[in-house]
Amino acid sequence: MTERLYPMGVNYEYPLNIGKLLATPMHYAPRQQILYRDQVVYDYSGFISRINRLASGLDQIGIKAGDTIAVLEYNSHRFLEFLFAIPMMGAALHTINWRQTPEHVGYTIEHSKADTVIVNSNFLPQLESITGHLGAVKRIIVINEEDSPAESGLDITTDYESLIASGFASFDFPDIDEKSIASIFYTAGTTGKPKGVFFSHRQIVLHTLSVGLAAAGFNPQAGFSSFDTYMPITPMYHEHGWGMPYLATLLGARQVFPGRHNSDSVLKLIASQKITFTHCVPTMLHMLLSDPASDDMDLSSLKLIVGGAKLHDNLARKATAKGIKIYSGYGMSEACPLISVSNLKPGNSDDSEQRLQAITSAGIPVPLMELKIVDPQGTFMPHDGHSAGEIILRAPWLTKGYYNDPNRAKNLWRDGWLYTGDIGYVDEEGYIHITDRIKNVIKSGGEWISSPHLEKLVRKHGAVADAAVIAMPDEKWGERPVVLVVIKDEFKEQTTIEDLQNFMHHFVDEGEITKYSLPDKFLIVDEIPRTGVRKINIRKIRQIYGQ
Amino acid sequence: MTERLYPMGVNYEYPLNIGKLLATPMHYAPRQQILYRDQVVYDYSGFISRINRLASGLDQIGIKAGDTIAVLEYNSHRFLEFLFAIPMMGAALHTINWRQTPEHVGYTIEHSKADTVIVNSNFLPQLESITGHLGAVKRIIVINEEDSPAESGLDITTDYESLIASGFASFDFPDIDEKSIASIFYTAGTTGKPKGVFFSHRQIVLHTLSVGLAAAGFNPQAGFSSFDTYMPITPMYHEHGWGMPYLATLLGARQVFPGRHNSDSVLKLIASQKITFTHCVPTMLHMLLSDPASDDMDLSSLKLIVGGAKLHDNLARKATAKGIKIYSGYGMSEACPLISVSNLKPGNSDDSEQRLQAITSAGIPVPLMELKIVDPQGTFMPHDGHSAGEIILRAPWLTKGYYNDPNRAKNLWRDGWLYTGDIGYVDEEGYIHITDRIKNVIKSGGEWISSPHLEKLVRKHGAVADAAVIAMPDEKWGERPVVLVVIKDEFKEQTTIEDLQNFMHHFVDEGEITKYSLPDKFLIVDEIPRTGVRKINIRKIRQIYGQ
Repeated sequence: MTERLYPMGVNYEYPLNIGKLLATPMHYAPRQQILYRDQVVYDYSGFISRINRLASGLDQIGIKAGDTIAVLEYNSHRFLEFLFAIPMMGAALHTINWRQTPEHVGYTIEHSKADTVIVNSNFLPQLESITGHLGAVKRIIVINEEDSPAESGLDITTDYESLIASGFASFDFPDIDEKSIASIFYTAGTTGKPKGVFFSHRQIVLHTLSVGLAAAGFNPQAGFSSFDTYMPITPMYHEHGWGMPYLATLLGARQVFPGRHNSDSVLKLIASQKITFTHCVPTMLHMLLSDPASDDMDLSSLKLIVGGAKLHDNLARKATAKGIKIYSGYGMSEACPLISVSNLKPGNSDDSEQRLQAITSAGIPVPLMELKIVDPQGTFMPHDGHSAGEIILRAPWLTKGYYNDPNRAKNLWRDGWLYTGDIGYVDEEGYIHITDRIKNVIKSGGEWISSPHLEKLVRKHGAVADAAVIAMPDEKWGERPVVLVVIKDEFKEQTTIEDLQNFMHHFVDEGEITKYSLPDKFLIVDEIPRTGVRKINIRKIRQIYGQ
Repeated sequence: MTERLYPMGVNYEYPLNIGKLLATPMHYAPRQQILYRDQVVYDYSGFISRINRLASGLDQIGIKAGDTIAVLEYNSHRFLEFLFAIPMMGAALHTINWRQTPEHVGYTIEHSKADTVIVNSNFLPQLESITGHLGAVKRIIVINEEDSPAESGLDITTDYESLIASGFASFDFPDIDEKSIASIFYTAGTTGKPKGVFFSHRQIVLHTLSVGLAAAGFNPQAGFSSFDTYMPITPMYHEHGWGMPYLATLLGARQVFPGRHNSDSVLKLIASQKITFTHCVPTMLHMLLSDPASDDMDLSSLKLIVGGAKLHDNLARKATAKGIKIYSGYGMSEACPLISVSNLKPGNSDDSEQRLQAITSAGIPVPLMELKIVDPQGTFMPHDGHSAGEIILRAPWLTKGYYNDPNRAKNLWRDGWLYTGDIGYVDEEGYIHITDRIKNVIKSGGEWISSPHLEKLVRKHGAVADAAVIAMPDEKWGERPVVLVVIKDEFKEQTTIEDLQNFMHHFVDEGEITKYSLPDKFLIVDEIPRTGVRKINIRKIRQIYGQ
């Protein structure tokens, strides 16, 4: 490490940079294993040598502090190397979501101004299809998993293993300022171009400590600890694999990286490598549990955090029945990503259904996370199990804005709080429950009306084939709900708008909705305009039916 | 909290200040109990109201950010209030060790420039005896535990409960800069006046997170968690009770404060309040286990960290036999204080003696703690179980120097490392073993010779009644060992210096000491000059026998 000169008596100003996370495993677990699939690739001591060689190799081909390196890679020990070596050099690591369209991949490489790309040979065709976006890219480094190097029309600088072989075992890492940018990740919005979130060294270190404390200090029964064998199923491009590989490394835990994987290979690794801690999205968990290979497996040593989408009761029940200790994490790209974890609490009832409600909730904020629920006027709501509002956040690791895109952050940060766009309530035990997205609600007279909820109720009418509730601007109320309905052919003759209005009135009488939630208007239409992914196409509706 | 104005799109710069530790318990455990002795005084929600009232009351009598408040108090819920409210106002909390001489208490109050003292009425006589040092003190606030207020010749401003009653339930805490000084503590050196160590908000927050991770993430079997009932036995004036009350509060754990205590009252509270986590010095643990009241107690739910001095094997064995899950912490005032904890590791043998060696060691550094062992030339030593050297540190929470006393820190911080003055080695598992203090070693030709070790060997000679090994300045070697010996009366006639020299040579032949450790000179004396606490009085020896 490049040393400042310290006169006698002058203390060291310790920066919270990513390199500092390595002191603990080097002391605690230098001989602990790191595996790629079923193969031990090195121990922690060897891992740290590789980080030095990688940085040295990158340095020799001209990478400097302040540069940006984009990576396209599966979950591998190499990805773990990127997570440390690249920020530790002072460069920014741009982790690319290779599930995006090639067009979006190209856009993000251009937008982040990455001049170097490290790419698994499997993704070369994707890169070749977007050469128009690679004008500023000066170096392409290829990861060849096969013995024979990949063929490519691109101008390849070197391959990853040769680069590492050319590096020295000891690189003079600078002692990075904690506020330097360590990583950039682009999140695909529902509209417009992907937006970049970015995190400093300090933010990543504090996220690691807090998540570690949330996953252990608040969960003595099934926490993540230095005794675990860890494997990331969540793609590591997604916010450093939800930050968990940093934590696993700090803990000196045994780590297994699955490479390109499917439910079959993941299950095999869980069994052969005795994985005890992992995390994934509900879809992946569903695939694992639906795979016949899991039927005879003993999964009772597995602890699993589900995130990225709501953990539904049935899936949680199925996992629990298999003995998996399952929890939910609630997060978002803008939050590095973890906001809360649904650990059980000392006061939780022994009733299995009540425990299920706790663990399928969005959980309890991790340490240092300040989370409030606000009504449309910005008033903080109580934790009473029903008062809903938008979830707003303060924490040391929230993105400061969108990378090189200040205008798009205007609605993200307001009054010093990050507005998540999620609507929910907090129950008396402190568990957060997400009920809606702010963009789905209609703001009427200072209250919120949920469009999806209204749609669900309209669809209960036997004559309705499809329905969409949209906000109509209103001078007095701000916005009012309007319903577009498609009536089933066989009911077309006999169904009137009055029928529908009366039908909705029932739900007011039953207390299901408030009176002010009643739609002002019903429009019977032939078809609801939808997007490619079956979402309601608000823009087209407005074009057709006016404002 | 005093809010900055944040324009749209501008993020909140989250400072690591002590107030931030309260967001988690307020969300997680607002109804969790805090007790004083056997009485519930409030829940966390009530605790936070009290903090507000205390700050408001202090504000009303003129305390401002930048002031220093000194406190003399037992382990109580009030002390927990000090730990939060005073730094959260922007004032510095000076925690006084009331076991010092009144003279030292007076010196530290003057030196820290405290203008307010909060004092338990039991300590009023101590304060009255040092009025000469209280010239700068403008306010004295008395804690009356009895119904009738204490009599005092001092000019009392108010009593603690009246101050709190006068405060408002909501105080506008400023959002303190993380680098502001939060606390000052004076440590009694072996020579000279007490030295003040001081810590910023950032340092205390990071210490809390790291210790929390060390105590849970690295110890899944017996870690400290939100499910524990916590009681501090270590005096809370000593570095915020080793930082544990901050951690217990962040975890939202049930907390019990014993007040003025002895082994009897501590045992009663452990039983009646079902304490599961505590920490103390070995002497206190010895008292607890020697107390007949502990004989019939079930202590198998207790987890205990011993610190402040070496945990000896016999005591550890005795505690383990009682079912206590016992660990050592190694720390020092300059380190806020925790450096390392002797958690068991995944690879530890099942052999109970080997486990005992691990838990009685000085442990493994906590996360973010960089610890090296250096020889006299400053070379890092390997972790091989025998290469000894001075222990040097880097961590985010080390004191920057001595408070208002830059000259005395000159030897503390060198080349950007904090020199602990402890000598030890690290074994292959990473456990630190302390063998000596640097001031006890003789530096000879770039090697270290341990004075206590030589003394022990000289004493093995049957004719020796007492011995002292001191360093003699030497032009060639730097320092060389010289032995002062007292010969037993009955051997005076027949014992020569040559006998002693030959005797010491045996230990070289046996490999017990190196050849260069052989003393250069023996002086037969009538008496070894010693201090009041039976330590060798080096100063007097030099006066008598010259340099």
